[in-house]
Amino acid sequence: MAGDLKALLSPYGRPALSDSVLPALLEGISGIAKALNQSQNISLAGTHNAFGDGQLNVDVSSENLIREALAKCPSVITASSEEDPVERPANGNQAQVGAPESERYTVAFDPLDGSSIIAPNWTVGTIIGIWEGDSALKQPVDKQIAAILGVYGPRTTAIVAVRVPGCDPCCIEIGIGNEPYSYEIVRTNVRLAEAPFKTRYFAPANLRAAAESEAYMRLVTHYIEQKYTLRYSGGLVPDVVHALVKGHGIYVSPVTGASQAKLRRLYELLPIALIIECAGGKAVDPSSGEDILSRPLDNCNERAGLVCGTMEEVDFVKRTLLNA
Amino acid sequence: MAGDLKALLSPYGRPALSDSVLPALLEGISGIAKALNQSQNISLAGTHNAFGDGQLNVDVSSENLIREALAKCPSVITASSEEDPVERPANGNQAQVGAPESERYTVAFDPLDGSSIIAPNWTVGTIIGIWEGDSALKQPVDKQIAAILGVYGPRTTAIVAVRVPGCDPCCIEIGIGNEPYSYEIVRTNVRLAEAPFKTRYFAPANLRAAAESEAYMRLVTHYIEQKYTLRYSGGLVPDVVHALVKGHGIYVSPVTGASQAKLRRLYELLPIALIIECAGGKAVDPSSGEDILSRPLDNCNERAGLVCGTMEEVDFVKRTLLNA
Repeated sequence: MAGDLKALLSPYGRPALSDSVLPALLEGISGIAKALNQSQNISLAGTHNAFGDGQLNVDVSSENLIREALAKCPSVITASSEEDPVERPANGNQAQVGAPESERYTVAFDPLDGSSIIAPNWTVGTIIGIWEGDSALKQPVDKQIAAILGVYGPRTTAIVAVRVPGCDPCCIEIGIGNEPYSYEIVRTNVRLAEAPFKTRYFAPANLRAAAESEAYMRLVTHYIEQKYTLRYSGGLVPDVVHALVKGHGIYVSPVTGASQAKLRRLYELLPIALIIECAGGKAVDPSSGEDILSRPLDNCNERAGLVCGTMEEVDFVKRTLLNA
Repeated sequence: MAGDLKALLSPYGRPALSDSVLPALLEGISGIAKALNQSQNISLAGTHNAFGDGQLNVDVSSENLIREALAKCPSVITASSEEDPVERPANGNQAQVGAPESERYTVAFDPLDGSSIIAPNWTVGTIIGIWEGDSALKQPVDKQIAAILGVYGPRTTAIVAVRVPGCDPCCIEIGIGNEPYSYEIVRTNVRLAEAPFKTRYFAPANLRAAAESEAYMRLVTHYIEQKYTLRYSGGLVPDVVHALVKGHGIYVSPVTGASQAKLRRLYELLPIALIIECAGGKAVDPSSGEDILSRPLDNCNERAGLVCGTMEEVDFVKRTLLNA
């Protein structure tokens, strides 16, 4: 099956990306799916990550599985993650052997997003961004060239987006088999749809912020009065993937005085934004209205809010939240 | 492992239930989990169920897996399902052989609840009610003696409740392994918690109804202003299981003039209500405020709304929706 991805991505002329990095990460996602499937006792690992969150045993094993996948890829020079947000050599402390001169990548990932909904057995995910060169502290719009969302639900799926300057971007949906590992391309062209929409969906994150933001409350009331359908799992990956699969959706996570920005730019927002843009949508910062991908990172720990979905819906949110 | 369930349920003196019916259904749930895990191409089966819903290929295979499980249980005399809502002999058209005189059951089930969220790979579930005797068209509060929710997410879990007149009810959480099939009891006492709550959750179903119901809109505004946390997947099983696992939650699916009752009493509401009551909560009809379990069925096709969760939250919803 690996040939399919190779063939699909051959126009990009990135053999290490299509033959090594993406397949290794998809297999890592399959490993996480197996680990979750066998983890009936979700417990705190007794440690905390750099953001102060208590780590679950499944957080730790997911982190290790992605790190192991990256160590197999000579072209991945640098890695960091939400669990260990410091850029380091991807292959432990050793320099990578056999890194091609022409392809050198940095990978930034959140191994298991959605900790709060693991205990009730709701769908959770992995978020991965792949960057050109030896660091992710660059201009995201050009230098983050691929992203993956792994989705752990009743089955295992992934969304992969690739955008290399000078080529058309692509966004594909992949089905993953776990016993034994295999993958198949389910859709080669994941696209948000055009109006008119049969059903319109909204996902109001951080809804408690509406208690102190008139503009956000007005926005939520608008969706209810206009009879949008509510789908909000509280997991960023399933909430975004819902819009991608249904072809319509608006995800809103605003930032207010009392309710601080929670989403990590490097490990969550930038990969999500690349995927949404490659699917024909838009992802902006609710505080400034600027595209998420337009602002470089100062460091690995930055946080912000998120508005993403179909272009018209995102523009409507910008007008409502910023002109308030 | 089967011995655990047998030992736990031995006080009820229902060997066919604890040694045959419940284990067969848990194994059927495991079969559905495997089928879902391998179904990368979700498609319409080209048929419709009795409620006019388009059937997915996974709906059909789930129905067959539960029917096969029931055919192995001599004490299950009658079965019907949301896909085929007519009470018939459980063992095809043959009379059951070896049915014990003392235990005779009817099973009513929704094999795969949450069709709309299967494509985006969100958690879905199976709902099963087990009734005393040869039909479910009886007084639910006494005659529906057990219920199961199967939960298909990153792992496979189940909630099982048993309530037999004269004995204390129980509600247990089970972890299911699929390759090979096994089960383990994860928690023997699933209980909604007592106030004060660290986090309070709300799940506003049928939210479009708030566009035409001032009382429902007022209720939703109350949750936002009081900073409840929103979790609403749109799947009845994951939404209810979220409350059971977190220890707090309020699920509201009201019925208004323009927005008709959607939930099936026999296949969805009655089993959910038994489980919620066995976990110390309450489940009422939003139109009358009466307990869901207090009213017998006239037929297999009845529908209604639902308010369920912790007792205090349900009472608050009753006051808000009914005194409006």
